[in-house]
Amino acid sequence: MPAPLENITVLDLTHVLAGPYCSMILSDLGARIIKVERPGTGDDTRNFPPFKDGESAYFATINHGKESIALDLKAPDDRAVFERLLAQADVLLENYRPGVMQRLGYGWEDLHARFPRLIYGAVSGFGHSGPDAQKPAYDMVVQARGGVMSITGEKDRDPVRVGASIGDIVAGMFLGHGVLAALLDVEKSGEGRFIDVAMLDSQLALLEHAIAITSVTGKAPQPSGARHPSITPFETFHAADGLFVIAAGNNALFARLCAALDLPLAADPRFATNPARCENARLLKRLIEAITLGNSKNHWIGVLTEAGIPTGPIQTVDQVMKDPQILARNMVVEVLGENGKSAKLSAGNPIKMSGLADPETRAPAPKLDADRAEILAWLKEVEAHAVP
Amino acid sequence: MPAPLENITVLDLTHVLAGPYCSMILSDLGARIIKVERPGTGDDTRNFPPFKDGESAYFATINHGKESIALDLKAPDDRAVFERLLAQADVLLENYRPGVMQRLGYGWEDLHARFPRLIYGAVSGFGHSGPDAQKPAYDMVVQARGGVMSITGEKDRDPVRVGASIGDIVAGMFLGHGVLAALLDVEKSGEGRFIDVAMLDSQLALLEHAIAITSVTGKAPQPSGARHPSITPFETFHAADGLFVIAAGNNALFARLCAALDLPLAADPRFATNPARCENARLLKRLIEAITLGNSKNHWIGVLTEAGIPTGPIQTVDQVMKDPQILARNMVVEVLGENGKSAKLSAGNPIKMSGLADPETRAPAPKLDADRAEILAWLKEVEAHAVP
Repeated sequence: MPAPLENITVLDLTHVLAGPYCSMILSDLGARIIKVERPGTGDDTRNFPPFKDGESAYFATINHGKESIALDLKAPDDRAVFERLLAQADVLLENYRPGVMQRLGYGWEDLHARFPRLIYGAVSGFGHSGPDAQKPAYDMVVQARGGVMSITGEKDRDPVRVGASIGDIVAGMFLGHGVLAALLDVEKSGEGRFIDVAMLDSQLALLEHAIAITSVTGKAPQPSGARHPSITPFETFHAADGLFVIAAGNNALFARLCAALDLPLAADPRFATNPARCENARLLKRLIEAITLGNSKNHWIGVLTEAGIPTGPIQTVDQVMKDPQILARNMVVEVLGENGKSAKLSAGNPIKMSGLADPETRAPAPKLDADRAEILAWLKEVEAHAVP
Repeated sequence: MPAPLENITVLDLTHVLAGPYCSMILSDLGARIIKVERPGTGDDTRNFPPFKDGESAYFATINHGKESIALDLKAPDDRAVFERLLAQADVLLENYRPGVMQRLGYGWEDLHARFPRLIYGAVSGFGHSGPDAQKPAYDMVVQARGGVMSITGEKDRDPVRVGASIGDIVAGMFLGHGVLAALLDVEKSGEGRFIDVAMLDSQLALLEHAIAITSVTGKAPQPSGARHPSITPFETFHAADGLFVIAAGNNALFARLCAALDLPLAADPRFATNPARCENARLLKRLIEAITLGNSKNHWIGVLTEAGIPTGPIQTVDQVMKDPQILARNMVVEVLGENGKSAKLSAGNPIKMSGLADPETRAPAPKLDADRAEILAWLKEVEAHAVP
């Protein structure tokens, strides 16, 4: 059974993270990604640390399995190649500042007129409309402006950034949905679509709970440290050897938790309902920790898991990368380096699917312009067979 | 131009957040979502605060525009209805513990044999394979175990939870990619697919940078507060009236930043390269704040924006919801209540697409079982016209 996106060709002008993350998802689903890079330097992340044997491990995690061709979109010869590629591609991805592609003659209207089936996916800091469309953005700018930072961290301390680059990644993921939906549609309509995803908009889309609270109460939620803002107990607790997590999200789980810890609190009016537990959360935490401090994290995780209560450790990234469940799911894969040497580790594909291979080793990330000859030969081949 | 997923019917057994977030994305792209709920209580989030006029605003933000039918999948009559729905649906979504659907007779193998084109999308805490497949999970459990908490927060303080429920949401988004890719594929192959997304796996997929660092250096990254771990300056700075963000991600931006702040540092060897800046980050922060403390956040955001440097405020959720760029992008929409009253606010659709309507008002979230009569009438209608 071929991969679901086999025969889909994506022409990928994007660089750094949001756009390349989108094309990585499409690649993992079987699409061919032709990365069109700036001659000389290529994608900025080729120079991002950490390096292994002179190659960026960062670049490898996001760009494995893609092809690379270097094209100067202002040089006539390279423009001609680019336009031949456009004629064969199903999807064009770009993450330039709005207006840059128009000035190159490759704006959506221009391209749609010439290549009506082409899907045009754009990701940018603030989107292609609105007063700030032209402003530059990085992950941190949209995490801060978009509200996620304001609800992350500890109360009465400065807000903190989410350690993962969700400003970029989530935008790249929404672009992926748009591209896939447009690919499905073009089979029926024959018309490509323009997809315009903004990193700032995408942050807002993460705020389900916070928007509901703000719109009903008029007050924005505060950061709540390691606690869920409106479910109790749903937070970290101290065991004898450090912190672990208990997430007892409803009354039945709370009753089971009380039984497992031998705490006679399930019928106590101060803790009988979730609103009451939220009101008395600090007291409840002390009562639970009076028990949990008496033994190790692993002990309690075992006891509570046995009782069917969601619980678990707080793992550092090196621990996660050795977690038996993660390894059983093939979620840490090896990306080969040049000549099959210098392998790097990368997150695996979280989309497990019947008929989709999930190998433990992935093809290398391309050297800059490495696939030029093959791509040009392929173009000649498909053009020769084209129906006029 | 119809919406890209018009004519796609999704039978949605999921509840709470990860699965319903996936079907919300599909709904926003034009799919019809038939929410199949437990009789009597329905989706747990119908009882989640905050409430407005007796309806959960939380439920409304995720379930607007969906239809609801209450079915007991253990009762013969309801099973018959469910199977008639399966015969018409393109996609089935479920987020039960692995094995529950098999015990109901609706596991992937059973359904694939009877409905070969049906796509089966499952999202669960730990996935349908591996030693922990049967364990329960909530957002916080996978944020903690999956490593994101370990890199979020301040160094030498306890880790914090990401304020948004990315444990659920990101898994729902990956399920969306899988479903859309399978929908595209079934047009050619005629065969539906089984998609198995785990919340824990999805957390790992967010760790691009952290996995690269851990695999090359052998050391897991630490939380770095409001700083990017390997780009400087890319963090919060104090102005006279509070914190704001500067993200000068490369040498050219750093030179522009120095010019804009009248700081003669661009050629200083302590700050000339990103590695040097990272090494001297605390000193650089003090030198920058010696300037920025002299004026307001808005002043500096204006000055730096003018100079083309990524910068911005740290906004609380109420501020974000009034941000002119957010409003210009229609990223806060009104979800109607029953009878068109009792409107609630929700995040808009971040996937802006040509030919896809983006109204300021969205259809209500359904009352439990509200659409039973229409759904049964529709079934009769399509069954009468079916080719035998």
